[in-house]
Amino acid sequence: MPTRVPDAEFQDRLAAVRDRIAETGADAGVWFGATSIEYLTGFDHIQTERPVVLAVTDDRVEITVPRLEVERVEANSRIDAVHHYFDYPGGEPVETAAEMLSGLGVESVATDTDGAPGVMGYEGPALSAFVDVETQNWIDRMRWAKSDVEVELVRESARWGNLAHRYLADFTEVGEHPATVSQRASMEASRAMLDTLGDEYVPRTRGDGPAMAGFITGEQTALPHGHTANRRLQEGDVLVTGASANVDGYHSELERTMFLGEPTDEQAHYFELMLEAQTVAIDALGPGVELSYVDEQVWDFFEEQGVTDLAQHHVGHNIGLGAHEPPYIDRGWTDHCEEREGREERDAEMEPGHIYTIEPGIYTDEYGYRHSDTIAITEDGVDWLTYFPRDLKSNVISVE
Amino acid sequence: MPTRVPDAEFQDRLAAVRDRIAETGADAGVWFGATSIEYLTGFDHIQTERPVVLAVTDDRVEITVPRLEVERVEANSRIDAVHHYFDYPGGEPVETAAEMLSGLGVESVATDTDGAPGVMGYEGPALSAFVDVETQNWIDRMRWAKSDVEVELVRESARWGNLAHRYLADFTEVGEHPATVSQRASMEASRAMLDTLGDEYVPRTRGDGPAMAGFITGEQTALPHGHTANRRLQEGDVLVTGASANVDGYHSELERTMFLGEPTDEQAHYFELMLEAQTVAIDALGPGVELSYVDEQVWDFFEEQGVTDLAQHHVGHNIGLGAHEPPYIDRGWTDHCEEREGREERDAEMEPGHIYTIEPGIYTDEYGYRHSDTIAITEDGVDWLTYFPRDLKSNVISVE
Repeated sequence: MPTRVPDAEFQDRLAAVRDRIAETGADAGVWFGATSIEYLTGFDHIQTERPVVLAVTDDRVEITVPRLEVERVEANSRIDAVHHYFDYPGGEPVETAAEMLSGLGVESVATDTDGAPGVMGYEGPALSAFVDVETQNWIDRMRWAKSDVEVELVRESARWGNLAHRYLADFTEVGEHPATVSQRASMEASRAMLDTLGDEYVPRTRGDGPAMAGFITGEQTALPHGHTANRRLQEGDVLVTGASANVDGYHSELERTMFLGEPTDEQAHYFELMLEAQTVAIDALGPGVELSYVDEQVWDFFEEQGVTDLAQHHVGHNIGLGAHEPPYIDRGWTDHCEEREGREERDAEMEPGHIYTIEPGIYTDEYGYRHSDTIAITEDGVDWLTYFPRDLKSNVISVE
Repeated sequence: MPTRVPDAEFQDRLAAVRDRIAETGADAGVWFGATSIEYLTGFDHIQTERPVVLAVTDDRVEITVPRLEVERVEANSRIDAVHHYFDYPGGEPVETAAEMLSGLGVESVATDTDGAPGVMGYEGPALSAFVDVETQNWIDRMRWAKSDVEVELVRESARWGNLAHRYLADFTEVGEHPATVSQRASMEASRAMLDTLGDEYVPRTRGDGPAMAGFITGEQTALPHGHTANRRLQEGDVLVTGASANVDGYHSELERTMFLGEPTDEQAHYFELMLEAQTVAIDALGPGVELSYVDEQVWDFFEEQGVTDLAQHHVGHNIGLGAHEPPYIDRGWTDHCEEREGREERDAEMEPGHIYTIEPGIYTDEYGYRHSDTIAITEDGVDWLTYFPRDLKSNVISVE
């Protein structure tokens, strides 16, 4: 199983954007977005008030960074030259990037944004003050369909997320703090991942582990974006969990509704409804399927069951370098795409390499019920990347 | 010690922006930014592809949210009415917000951005398609000077960060994984924080603990933004640590250069140089001091010592709701401000309520050396919020 993006993959990505650059007639492609820069070159950085600017021409890849990133970039064999300013606001990031472009003989660019985004208080000039600019979002769109290697990286993430989730279930006991159980599970899974992968492990964290699992409990589960309350676990608690791991920047998503002790009949009822809704969605997945169709299937099921008022969100999202990325499984996706100039109708269909989280939820006044699985679309069907058991019995934690 | 922002503080903030709205002549202030919305109302949310839009008029506070945030917002007494769309992209966030504004009789707004930012693939219309728009960044600027309560929240954060850091030092042993040591320290400090604060604790995490400490080691320390490598701790390792805690959304920053076993003479030399540079910076702090002056003092010291080539970044940043926020202690800050229309010269001076991280660093080819302390500016001096010992002896971890 690959645990890092191979060099050939980056060469393919660079070739693809060079084709796009040639089509536009621009002299270079330019990126300010950290995820796009990582996708094209493998250089990952924390996006702060200090802009980073990547330029790709037909034969060169150059970058402008703050001084503190110079050594990290110079280690990257895909980047031919590194330019830097000392720091912000004293340094002049966009001016330095403009000099880089001038040195490359570039007079026109296709860029993801016209100047650096206003992260953490950054303010600065537009790139169009220096060169001719047109905007593009090539990488955002290229990231929709993952390559075989990317699918394997998400699968590897799911393996370690699964282990973290298993620890989470094992450590969950009456009287424990939810936060402590979560942190202990994350620690043990991270340690197992580090020792197992050894030199294959690509460091991606600062002072934290690569694997994580955690949960929200009790009435917080009624809120899709609830928080981990300061209340020790009690018999009868409903848990909504989440687990993942960072594998060379790629993520997966595993979520389970679990019970500490036997659920009530009502809780079991809503659990089974949620489980069936998730099955309805998964059965609807496949290449060529419209995204909105999958959301509609679940909505139809909720209507049949008379529980549309207990639904609070669409069925799922894509996942990869971003923990949450388009396209979204939403009834509005088709219309949304048709309204946008330059997007084709097929944008609204599932394609091989898309990786979806499937997570329709049910939220009563008391508790929430949601599983999430990460599933890739293949040429002829689907490929489950997460595999923690979904059934009720497997998600009841004994209190003995 | 307060552990949450009191209601009176939010009333003060709302009153302040209402004064600004009146000055502009707009009918309402509008915010799309999650941190600004949290600052004004206490409603915190994860900013995703689903926009949230806050409107403040002279007598009303209303908000537009996705369905999944409705119950969380309704619990907030400062928000008078909650409007929602079901989800994105099927729902129409900005259109829903425009209807909210229309219902308020609002025809002109002063807004932080003209439409929702393109987070996680969001695309949608400008707000100016519906109402007259001028842009403002009032909250970003208001956040520079913290109130007394805010300073206390950062101090409370520093207390728990200090405990996490103490655990980190205690758990650091030859043969341990850096990630595991970090996660264990975070877990123990989080547990102590939860049990100590009890009902005073404001939940802010999802499946993680509120306190954290961690480190990077060995050659990764030579990179200011290095990662935690998969290499067990060895005698002679240099560590650069970091610790913080989330107290109702507020952060602090504590960093130390530590040694596992006795440092070499060269390591001790650079440690003492770094420590003296930090002392130079701290001695220069105070109300009315130009930010650039502090950075210049450190640079002058580095020049005297002949080590400017070992510096890679400016002296520090502000901290509060953001872990990294302006203004920055940078030699370019004054010029930067003078260039910006509408900012006064005094913007470049330290003021009571500013909370700075002071973290000049030295980076050799082998290792990095950096402490960071969080220090508030007062009416007549400074107030240290972090307090872990800074001296060499206190930062050597015995290997016996």
